[in-house]
Amino acid sequence: MKAPGIQGVVETILYTSDLRRATAFYREVLGLAPMKGDGERFQAFDAGAGRVLLLFRQGGTLEPQPVATGGVIPPHDGQGPLHIAFAITAADYDPWCDHLRARAVAIESETRWERGGRSIYFRDPDNHLVELVTPGIWPNY
Amino acid sequence: MKAPGIQGVVETILYTSDLRRATAFYREVLGLAPMKGDGERFQAFDAGAGRVLLLFRQGGTLEPQPVATGGVIPPHDGQGPLHIAFAITAADYDPWCDHLRARAVAIESETRWERGGRSIYFRDPDNHLVELVTPGIWPNY
Repeated sequence: MKAPGIQGVVETILYTSDLRRATAFYREVLGLAPMKGDGERFQAFDAGAGRVLLLFRQGGTLEPQPVATGGVIPPHDGQGPLHIAFAITAADYDPWCDHLRARAVAIESETRWERGGRSIYFRDPDNHLVELVTPGIWPNY
Repeated sequence: MKAPGIQGVVETILYTSDLRRATAFYREVLGLAPMKGDGERFQAFDAGAGRVLLLFRQGGTLEPQPVATGGVIPPHDGQGPLHIAFAITAADYDPWCDHLRARAVAIESETRWERGGRSIYFRDPDNHLVELVTPGIWPNY
């Protein structure tokens, strides 16, 4: 039996030891629009293209979370310097470098890919490895 | 200075203690097409909509990884039952439940959201919490 289809990843999740600090970083440095959050346990951002970045406070999702309209969200949690990559346009590569420098965010690395794409790497306040990547890295991007 | 734009998340990453087992699960159960992998340290999948799921062996990305065409990928790693949500259509909700049962994958929970969306939750072999969600959960999805 063949699996029914999947239309991409909707929610990409990072865990934080300081939700307020992480929320400020993704809003102010990454420029993501906050969508929904409770100020304590989670914050959702519009990551563009109908996709969502979710920040959860570490240890805040170890118990099942009831959903008012039905059902329960099972437990999850995470540690470690996780990795996430956001799409940017090639035209925005240099502006992003300038923007990060203006925000005193250290650029840890830059890479060039065989297919022509380029990446900028830096750390968020939880030491997660954040990448901004232009098209030309994967067969489908 | 306003941040330049972001066009969604390109790469969503999970870490695994058994790359071969996790690769089989995402290929056979989730039906994702493998794109690139080295059989030992990482496997990339086409997650649909120009997006990529990356599996990394835990502990396999603790050292900087040189890129042949220029630069270095900085270290990252992760532990814990992480969480990821994939987009499915409303029409595929019941077929997905049937497919998971046929594959002997236990459905841990199902939820209904205020905006009309529905979610199915289950575990991958590393205990990561995998969600399949229909539109109608977030303001942008």
